[in-house]
Amino acid sequence: MSKIWQRGIRYFSYASSIEKGQSRVIDASLTLIRERAKLKGELVRLIGGAKASASLLGVPLGHNSSFLQGPAFAPPRIREAIWCGSTNSSTEEGKELKDARVLTDVGDVPVQEIRDCGVDDDRLMNVISESVKLVMEEEPLRPLVLGGDHSISYPVVRAVSEKLGGPVDILHLDAHPDIYDCFEGNKYSHASSFARIMEGGYARRLLQVGIRSINQEGREQGKRFGVEQYEMRTFSRDRQILENLKLGEGVKGVYISIDVDCLDPAFAPGVSHIEPGGLSFRDVLNILHNLQGDVVGADVVEFNPQRDTVDGMTAMVAAKLVRELAAKISK
Amino acid sequence: MSKIWQRGIRYFSYASSIEKGQSRVIDASLTLIRERAKLKGELVRLIGGAKASASLLGVPLGHNSSFLQGPAFAPPRIREAIWCGSTNSSTEEGKELKDARVLTDVGDVPVQEIRDCGVDDDRLMNVISESVKLVMEEEPLRPLVLGGDHSISYPVVRAVSEKLGGPVDILHLDAHPDIYDCFEGNKYSHASSFARIMEGGYARRLLQVGIRSINQEGREQGKRFGVEQYEMRTFSRDRQILENLKLGEGVKGVYISIDVDCLDPAFAPGVSHIEPGGLSFRDVLNILHNLQGDVVGADVVEFNPQRDTVDGMTAMVAAKLVRELAAKISK
Amino acid sequence: MSKIWQRGIRYFSYASSIEKGQSRVIDASLTLIRERAKLKGELVRLIGGAKASASLLGVPLGHNSSFLQGPAFAPPRIREAIWCGSTNSSTEEGKELKDARVLTDVGDVPVQEIRDCGVDDDRLMNVISESVKLVMEEEPLRPLVLGGDHSISYPVVRAVSEKLGGPVDILHLDAHPDIYDCFEGNKYSHASSFARIMEGGYARRLLQVGIRSINQEGREQGKRFGVEQYEMRTFSRDRQILENLKLGEGVKGVYISIDVDCLDPAFAPGVSHIEPGGLSFRDVLNILHNLQGDVVGADVVEFNPQRDTVDGMTAMVAAKLVRELAAKISK
Amino acid sequence: MSKIWQRGIRYFSYASSIEKGQSRVIDASLTLIRERAKLKGELVRLIGGAKASASLLGVPLGHNSSFLQGPAFAPPRIREAIWCGSTNSSTEEGKELKDARVLTDVGDVPVQEIRDCGVDDDRLMNVISESVKLVMEEEPLRPLVLGGDHSISYPVVRAVSEKLGGPVDILHLDAHPDIYDCFEGNKYSHASSFARIMEGGYARRLLQVGIRSINQEGREQGKRFGVEQYEMRTFSRDRQILENLKLGEGVKGVYISIDVDCLDPAFAPGVSHIEPGGLSFRDVLNILHNLQGDVVGADVVEFNPQRDTVDGMTAMVAAKLVRELAAKISK
Amino acid sequence: MSKIWQRGIRYFSYASSIEKGQSRVIDASLTLIRERAKLKGELVRLIGGAKASASLLGVPLGHNSSFLQGPAFAPPRIREAIWCGSTNSSTEEGKELKDARVLTDVGDVPVQEIRDCGVDDDRLMNVISESVKLVMEEEPLRPLVLGGDHSISYPVVRAVSEKLGGPVDILHLDAHPDIYDCFEGNKYSHASSFARIMEGGYARRLLQVGIRSINQEGREQGKRFGVEQYEMRTFSRDRQILENLKLGEGVKGVYISIDVDCLDPAFAPGVSHIEPGGLSFRDVLNILHNLQGDVVGADVVEFNPQRDTVDGMTAMVAAKLVRELAAKISK
Amino acid sequence: MSKIWQRGIRYFSYASSIEKGQSRVIDASLTLIRERAKLKGELVRLIGGAKASASLLGVPLGHNSSFLQGPAFAPPRIREAIWCGSTNSSTEEGKELKDARVLTDVGDVPVQEIRDCGVDDDRLMNVISESVKLVMEEEPLRPLVLGGDHSISYPVVRAVSEKLGGPVDILHLDAHPDIYDCFEGNKYSHASSFARIMEGGYARRLLQVGIRSINQEGREQGKRFGVEQYEMRTFSRDRQILENLKLGEGVKGVYISIDVDCLDPAFAPGVSHIEPGGLSFRDVLNILHNLQGDVVGADVVEFNPQRDTVDGMTAMVAAKLVRELAAKISK
Repeated sequence: MSKIWQRGIRYFSYASSIEKGQSRVIDASLTLIRERAKLKGELVRLIGGAKASASLLGVPLGHNSSFLQGPAFAPPRIREAIWCGSTNSSTEEGKELKDARVLTDVGDVPVQEIRDCGVDDDRLMNVISESVKLVMEEEPLRPLVLGGDHSISYPVVRAVSEKLGGPVDILHLDAHPDIYDCFEGNKYSHASSFARIMEGGYARRLLQVGIRSINQEGREQGKRFGVEQYEMRTFSRDRQILENLKLGEGVKGVYISIDVDCLDPAFAPGVSHIEPGGLSFRDVLNILHNLQGDVVGADVVEFNPQRDTVDGMTAMVAAKLVRELAAKISK
Repeated sequence: MSKIWQRGIRYFSYASSIEKGQSRVIDASLTLIRERAKLKGELVRLIGGAKASASLLGVPLGHNSSFLQGPAFAPPRIREAIWCGSTNSSTEEGKELKDARVLTDVGDVPVQEIRDCGVDDDRLMNVISESVKLVMEEEPLRPLVLGGDHSISYPVVRAVSEKLGGPVDILHLDAHPDIYDCFEGNKYSHASSFARIMEGGYARRLLQVGIRSINQEGREQGKRFGVEQYEMRTFSRDRQILENLKLGEGVKGVYISIDVDCLDPAFAPGVSHIEPGGLSFRDVLNILHNLQGDVVGADVVEFNPQRDTVDGMTAMVAAKLVRELAAKISK
Repeated sequence: MSKIWQRGIRYFSYASSIEKGQSRVIDASLTLIRERAKLKGELVRLIGGAKASASLLGVPLGHNSSFLQGPAFAPPRIREAIWCGSTNSSTEEGKELKDARVLTDVGDVPVQEIRDCGVDDDRLMNVISESVKLVMEEEPLRPLVLGGDHSISYPVVRAVSEKLGGPVDILHLDAHPDIYDCFEGNKYSHASSFARIMEGGYARRLLQVGIRSINQEGREQGKRFGVEQYEMRTFSRDRQILENLKLGEGVKGVYISIDVDCLDPAFAPGVSHIEPGGLSFRDVLNILHNLQGDVVGADVVEFNPQRDTVDGMTAMVAAKLVRELAAKISK
Repeated sequence: MSKIWQRGIRYFSYASSIEKGQSRVIDASLTLIRERAKLKGELVRLIGGAKASASLLGVPLGHNSSFLQGPAFAPPRIREAIWCGSTNSSTEEGKELKDARVLTDVGDVPVQEIRDCGVDDDRLMNVISESVKLVMEEEPLRPLVLGGDHSISYPVVRAVSEKLGGPVDILHLDAHPDIYDCFEGNKYSHASSFARIMEGGYARRLLQVGIRSINQEGREQGKRFGVEQYEMRTFSRDRQILENLKLGEGVKGVYISIDVDCLDPAFAPGVSHIEPGGLSFRDVLNILHNLQGDVVGADVVEFNPQRDTVDGMTAMVAAKLVRELAAKISK
Repeated sequence: MSKIWQRGIRYFSYASSIEKGQSRVIDASLTLIRERAKLKGELVRLIGGAKASASLLGVPLGHNSSFLQGPAFAPPRIREAIWCGSTNSSTEEGKELKDARVLTDVGDVPVQEIRDCGVDDDRLMNVISESVKLVMEEEPLRPLVLGGDHSISYPVVRAVSEKLGGPVDILHLDAHPDIYDCFEGNKYSHASSFARIMEGGYARRLLQVGIRSINQEGREQGKRFGVEQYEMRTFSRDRQILENLKLGEGVKGVYISIDVDCLDPAFAPGVSHIEPGGLSFRDVLNILHNLQGDVVGADVVEFNPQRDTVDGMTAMVAAKLVRELAAKISK
Repeated sequence: MSKIWQRGIRYFSYASSIEKGQSRVIDASLTLIRERAKLKGELVRLIGGAKASASLLGVPLGHNSSFLQGPAFAPPRIREAIWCGSTNSSTEEGKELKDARVLTDVGDVPVQEIRDCGVDDDRLMNVISESVKLVMEEEPLRPLVLGGDHSISYPVVRAVSEKLGGPVDILHLDAHPDIYDCFEGNKYSHASSFARIMEGGYARRLLQVGIRSINQEGREQGKRFGVEQYEMRTFSRDRQILENLKLGEGVKGVYISIDVDCLDPAFAPGVSHIEPGGLSFRDVLNILHNLQGDVVGADVVEFNPQRDTVDGMTAMVAAKLVRELAAKISK
């Protein structure tokens, strides 16, 4: 769809009214997020007592995937699964999700509407970064981002780092390193986001866990950027280390990025890239629960509702990841 | 989810900052729609030559359904199906959908985000009406609304009638009359929208086609409001009349409301209320193609993606209804 | 499973205790149906005013099918769909199903439990016939039987005819004539039930509608028994006749047997024998609604839940057939 | 449906005939179970040599679930899967299921039929308890109960304990503790069954394994009743203990209650409450195979066929649990 | 896959051994078809009495589709459905499919194996044509081709016409005209096959029935080649003509090409291009059964097993089309 | 289908033309494989430097299964999944699959076409063996066979052993031992293939891993042939041994036979025999990656596409097994 509109709009882009209209649409989009973030920040501060509080921000962007576009439909499905009533509202370690100090929601960045107005990817990525900063503006809210495909981690981490004024440590769970220099000519590809992050200096350490689809370029880029790549081939050996991580000291904190396909497809069939041989859900929770560090932001990405089971098992999986991350962030 | 937040927000509603925050969120929402409508209106006028042009407005509202809430997920699925590439961009009678004079899109009313801020249904319905008027403000755009459940037809038709300054004739295709005085205590229920419309004087004639689940109250309300109810029991007899309709003369035009469940579930399984014995897809097109009248607005509602087939057959059905309605509206 | 037990039990069948135990299980089964029928008959008579009232009797028997055994699971699914809440409780012509004078339920014949005790098919068929008579014993209840495969129509029609003291006319909707002399050596096969009925003299006229899988033997048996076979090949020609039937005069009334596969698989995919080219759901209702005659019993058979869509479309179809039949029977 | 009928029946409950009718239906139901149990007991005793023998009793009850009602449809699906022919009839440790001394079947308690006659839950629970006792009456049969939802474990364990004359030890595998004082006002809720069991003194030790959805009340109730709660969070640590259990000494034996959702949804998707992070199937078998103790009864509950995969994977899982439990019980 | 191999092979194509190897693979492929055709022809002639006999030839080619490649998997699925045992072996008008004089099978052209050896599309299309001629060589066999996508109709019709020495009349059932000059740069595209056929003079009359996705180019190409296009928009008017066709007189006979998507997706969901508003299965059979003419060849194409329902409804639909075509061809 | 044709052909088998025709069809089939193998061998030799290279050979045979026939449809699905584009072309340990020295493909043995000509199983098994030998003829190609059901392992291993001139060691991953003397009267049954292999002396050691459905005969046959059976019951104990295997020394090498059902159905639902409690995908890879030995051939069998998930998860699993086996074979 967007191609059509962009073409139409480019044709008339000499007309300054079109150009101004695009800017006004972007401004209105950011205003809407700012107002929602303000309202939620106000609410949490009124209740009081929270030093850090997770706040959901949906980024329904799927056009930078190399295969299938379903992750653009994920945020509303994950929200539905978080509150669906078939499970209670406590996290495994006893936090109460209905408490606004643990979890609020500022809604979605209107990605599709912005693209449909002919706005290009550079500006769109900036809108995502701006949206994350608007959330962080409201103490004690911290962004817990619902993807979308993995391309969104770049503008999100960039915003977190810029807002905090320095690099973070990143725990990245994924079947793939997503660190190609450029994938199919797209520098914003979901397969390149961590190359952009490392180039930008937004992260000090980058730990990649669950890796099992990696080629020579992936390994070379890993070395180039000093990435600590834990491949599934050696997971039984590495488990001890990974279940006792301590991150974020001496930098601005820890950012956690979970690509749902870090899990074996038996546990999470609703992904675009089926890659057998992954982590179990309990493996992931064991790593998260035992991680020591100040979690300043997080994302859950690449859930593809168009590939999920009829009863939405992967939506429940993504939702539980979000729930446990909210517990990890809030304090 | 909304219940939780509303509770939290009510508790603190003495805090005037919360109250003002809600208003600012609503204002920002309407501003975003206004700017998108302006941009699309400008584009169509720049191309020139259009007297009427369909413009999509999504209303992802599902909480007024009596059964299942899936229609809130429908608008992005319908858009995806319209442009999915497995079919070409011509309508059956030869209009080109890629021509902005035939079809533009102003995006979705942010229904879930507004509700999540604790805004009640009265104000939400007004936001929907306002959004429709913002589209109509931009000549020659006419609203082609993507539901959502059928409760949205009330604020949409109200807006159309108020904006045009008088009643319209309504062609309503549905398995149910949706004309209960009040359903389970909810005056905005999707089963009561046409009672609200008739009470408000927004329609002169109301023709209901495809009806096959109706009880005594439905028939009595029909008589009370002078509704012309064409039940499926007699469709083979009524076909001649229905394939030769002439509507909207002497009033402000014709509004067409299509509940996807007017179709037999064989043709549209993705609905919340499976009611065998309905229209075929061709029956519906024959009625639409042969209708004479100035179509000033339309909606396609009650498509439930959570009940669709794995390959999205009903999404394609809803999309083709939207496509053919766009052809009918534009001129 | 049954084979195993029968073998075990035959081995010990000299032990008279086993033999007596089987009889006591059968007696207990019939007592349970008798008591339920009595209770429901009492209830309807207490309300008063009913001359005929449909009462559901489930016969979860699937082992006489030639292909797949799923119909044994159908009765609970159909009941669930009748009362599922996604549709209201009025029939198309305005009868209220919640009124016990229109519809009651006496539960299922415990077919699987009886077979598992080593009881053979001859005795099982008699238990089914006895159960039907126990329902008819309670004025004004009339049996509306939920299959099960089509083999059950033989013991049911036999019971109806014996109880009423003479033959009935049968309206039989099906893709197949089910009139083989014997199918794969099984005289009780679901493909032979109407041969048994005609041989027994339990029917005067037998009209078969929807036929589209018939071989030479099927046509010859049809001639031999004077069956009126309406094949789909000529349905557009025969429609006039079939939508104006008058049956049952001069005999004990009309029995209606609906095999769900009379419908095209587009309308009813949940059947064991997919046979494209069948009736639409509306075609069936047009035939039923316009039929004149005193309907003394009916069955809906061959719905196979194991082949239904995920959301149970065929269950809803079978349920609506049962609902409309209840309306036809009760008065 | 039941609500309708109960209403009708209450209205007329002054009519003593209705009241007596209900009692006669219950009596007939129990008679049917008694006769089936007698027949199977006789058969096993005729073969001779068995000290304990598992006998299936289905309890198709789903109305006490808080979410979805599908478990009422489970017993016939589990039976079908036990004997389905795609696997052989030996258990993993070499017992032969076709040997009546290992496994017999006394059929289902007619739960739906009893409820449909207007019988309330107190009496229904008693019917379940009575049915279990009728099985235990027939030496050497021991009840292996097919649920139904988890609410049935209360009347079953109560019957086992009363019949044996003292408490048992319970091994309870589940994602949830099911130990709320009362859930949504229903003391018989499937979320409260173990509160009822502990209050009644029917168990000495209660070990809960697989727990991963538990809130503050669940943990407090656990402490109050002295429950040994093994949460999944620490499963890797607890595995050693759980694979070497010795239970039931000094009391009347061991009762095993398996909620299918103790398994991770990857292994058992067909459950009402998807809770990621559970046990693997092999984890469960390792616990069962290594358990030392005299198993006097068991249940497999909460399998929901309406959420299973198209090919019935969870039915096969539930069936294998039943098979291995039968091997564990029989001797 | 093929791209990879072709690249590898082109690189070494100077090596004459590779070039000769390809030719030997093609020769071996044609020899295999020749031998199978000979064997089947011999069999039919031994039985004797047949003037024309349908013989299945599978062409599992999907790479010329513009969207999805599933039709390459169709031939074995259709064969399985023809003989699947859930329906009998008589056609609707009484021909016996087990009689080799009605239907034989010469197997599949090894399309994938040939392409994998680096053979290009020009040579591949010739192999298909040659294969058809090898079937026609064996009196009285006539080709009944199982696609594959619609691109195969061009080499098939070309072979039929060349072998018979003149043009045929074509009855073409389809949602699309498939008559673009060139689609996405591919002259062999499945959207261009009838342009190639008409250009080549292989057909005198071309009747297209079921058309409902056609743009301006489609209508113009139709006029250019004198195609008789019957659009669904006017099907109710055209039905009389289409159910009384007489074709093939004065030319070499009639060729029938059925794209499964001529059917409404309710009847045939397993297609790549869901286009609502199509023919019913009975509509198609009414046209076929009443057609007068000598049918010299036929194809059934574009069935896509990857989009079919779990229980293979569209496979059964495609199979029944093949069965009825076999009856039409044989005499 | 084959039964029909065989009958027809037997009737006329006096006609020597039929007999000769069959032989010519078999000759043509083998010629086609020989030519494809030659071409691929030539290609690999031209590139140079490979000592061993995996070459795919499909054997789409499913008629020797005891339950369901889907594996006959597996080879094209596995190939599609190998090259599907959702994963890259490197194996976990870094081999490049697009390099012809790692993987080539010689296509499928035309099993269905040969059977359809009336050829019996003895000759068919010989054709399979001959095809394997034709691949091995072309140095450095080694056969990597795509089943089909497990019956094909017998003719494949026989060919490998005969061609190499002595026995091999076999690593056999499976839920079942497949070592019955004869299953349901069929000596070629997929449940008997390893009995045939051991009797023929084609293997020295046979290690069976993943076993969890085995009866007394299975264990006795195991002892008789000296099979090393590793049952899942003790897998946690045996893991150390199995992840450090060294095989094939002193014999002609190692053959690996992977029945997809060695995996737990959570990881591979698309199999005919659902047997819970199996290996994880990572368990299998750990065994394969750590195996020391010269792998001279391998097969991946019993993937049943008709039981796979809608999005083909098991196809991806089978494909990854093939990919990692290709890496293991090639050098």
